[in-house]
Amino acid sequence: MTDVKPRIALAIGDPAGVGPELAARIVADEDIRRDMDLLVVGDARILDEGARVAGVVLELDHLTAEDAIPDAMPRPVLLDLRNGDPGDIEVGTHSVKSGRSALDNFTVALGLGVAGAAGAVAFTPFNKAAMRLAHPTYDDEVAFLRERFPNEPAAAEFNILPNLWNARVSSHVPMSDVAGLVTQERILEMLDLTRQTMREAGFAEPRIAIAALNPHAGDGGNFGREEIDIIAPAVATARGRGLCCDGPFPADTVFWRARNAEFDAVLTMYHDQGQIAMKLIGFDSGVTLLGGLAIPILTPAHGSAYDIAGKGIANVGASKAALRLAASMARARYSGPYRSGGTALAAKALLA
Amino acid sequence: MTDVKPRIALAIGDPAGVGPELAARIVADEDIRRDMDLLVVGDARILDEGARVAGVVLELDHLTAEDAIPDAMPRPVLLDLRNGDPGDIEVGTHSVKSGRSALDNFTVALGLGVAGAAGAVAFTPFNKAAMRLAHPTYDDEVAFLRERFPNEPAAAEFNILPNLWNARVSSHVPMSDVAGLVTQERILEMLDLTRQTMREAGFAEPRIAIAALNPHAGDGGNFGREEIDIIAPAVATARGRGLCCDGPFPADTVFWRARNAEFDAVLTMYHDQGQIAMKLIGFDSGVTLLGGLAIPILTPAHGSAYDIAGKGIANVGASKAALRLAASMARARYSGPYRSGGTALAAKALLA
Repeated sequence: MTDVKPRIALAIGDPAGVGPELAARIVADEDIRRDMDLLVVGDARILDEGARVAGVVLELDHLTAEDAIPDAMPRPVLLDLRNGDPGDIEVGTHSVKSGRSALDNFTVALGLGVAGAAGAVAFTPFNKAAMRLAHPTYDDEVAFLRERFPNEPAAAEFNILPNLWNARVSSHVPMSDVAGLVTQERILEMLDLTRQTMREAGFAEPRIAIAALNPHAGDGGNFGREEIDIIAPAVATARGRGLCCDGPFPADTVFWRARNAEFDAVLTMYHDQGQIAMKLIGFDSGVTLLGGLAIPILTPAHGSAYDIAGKGIANVGASKAALRLAASMARARYSGPYRSGGTALAAKALLA
Repeated sequence: MTDVKPRIALAIGDPAGVGPELAARIVADEDIRRDMDLLVVGDARILDEGARVAGVVLELDHLTAEDAIPDAMPRPVLLDLRNGDPGDIEVGTHSVKSGRSALDNFTVALGLGVAGAAGAVAFTPFNKAAMRLAHPTYDDEVAFLRERFPNEPAAAEFNILPNLWNARVSSHVPMSDVAGLVTQERILEMLDLTRQTMREAGFAEPRIAIAALNPHAGDGGNFGREEIDIIAPAVATARGRGLCCDGPFPADTVFWRARNAEFDAVLTMYHDQGQIAMKLIGFDSGVTLLGGLAIPILTPAHGSAYDIAGKGIANVGASKAALRLAASMARARYSGPYRSGGTALAAKALLA
């Protein structure tokens, strides 16, 4: 069995933001080039403009959307979709054009994963407002992926720092809906998915802490009963299944304990419970994993950063961390040769 | 006008926890002794045991509960209430005896404040379970104070790090109740109280950020409408009144910005929204202020720490910070001489 380099489909994100310059820095990075093969998806003019902003020189091979993807990739390959003209896109402003370009790149990259031409998908940041202009039902990446992969409903977002993962029971919903979404079934589903995903990312047996919903973990029922009636029984069931997990723990100390290496992951009950902590612990280094699908999908946790786009000052650290995790997960899933011969057009058609 | 030293009534906290050793360290601290006069309230045997654990020598004057408080206090004064016997109290275990002792000390210290014998009250940590055994309606300090001071309903808890304050719209309630408690009236009340309290603590005009309730600040109404319908109008009203405040800001970045000195305070909508951040930013150094009353009441943010009580390893940093803030707020409110001649017994009777 040949142990090939992992092959990652990298979609260039929103062209009005920092996506192009970060993609260019990734393509030019010696460590990245050594450790993985890159199939970059986007417009050559946008990527060139990103390279100019970043001050890097790109060495890569260009293919059109109709060209067959080769067996061997001695250098990164750009699938030039001709779907964005820097002259038409105002940096720092969301538009239907910028959204369409990013969405198109993402769709092709996903198709390359589905087709077996890549072992993981990565993308530099999207702008949510632009994505909505291009695709009105685009609530967030998870909703979009559920729409595109209706047979894989487990899609879920993980937030990842170097030694700390965060998964959540509820996400982009009003706070008034959160308590109603905390169910034993959902907690168990997320615990199982977290364990499985972290094992694929290299954890032998991740230690998962479960956050409480209410202040002081409900204070013995004085400030809410979800800990007693729902969360604790779910944790007991999960432990009975052999998961290395514990809780519910008060949310205001569980991340402090996790940062001190007591846990590898925290399952939170709602979005900000984890995000407040993760952004304080590692604002610039966070990675987002869209997990629970056949193909791992990675992106830096930060956004399109319109305020600094085009200035060449965007920090590539989180993007590099996203690519490294993509490569590591691709390697864990697949060590054989990647499928060649397909085209970007065919990949896009897979998900159209 | 004589600029006297601020006089602080320091109640010894739960005797089964770290309260006695921290009180002893405070009494022995040269900086504290130089900058303020201390009226320590508790049992001499408990304080002596704390000094033994802490390895400090106490130099202070002893008064009984019936002795008159003197005009001049060249050394700290202990009001020995004879209300706790170390032989009766098991360290690390909450009991009705430990709760009664702490509650008694607190009541006398509050009475000294009300009587004008002290400009601020401080206490080393209570244990909530012990307080409830001693006083079944003791939900938390704020509830207890509202019960004791029915004419001062504005009592509210502030969490304080060296350059960052946190106040909250809702506190010890189930998460399912939080959205219903977010009202314009309550937000404005807390903004006014935060500004007033911070001015007393030395901020000329505090810059207050208001956190959103929903993830991504509701994402323009997609994940909840409280930001649009309630929080933003309240912020506009407060700005119209001249408050230096802004928001609502997404909760997962507002503390990151505050830590970078963009704001002096964050008003959060619920308990953990602030506590997750504050404990990550300064776990050991946080101070809790019970504000909105005639007398400022300060305590370290950490608890009675039964797991390390009696070992002499408790960190006194947060307690010292609490005493320093107590002195600073007492000085801002009052520079004249403190009332002498009263007794601990009379102080207790004021609040019985």
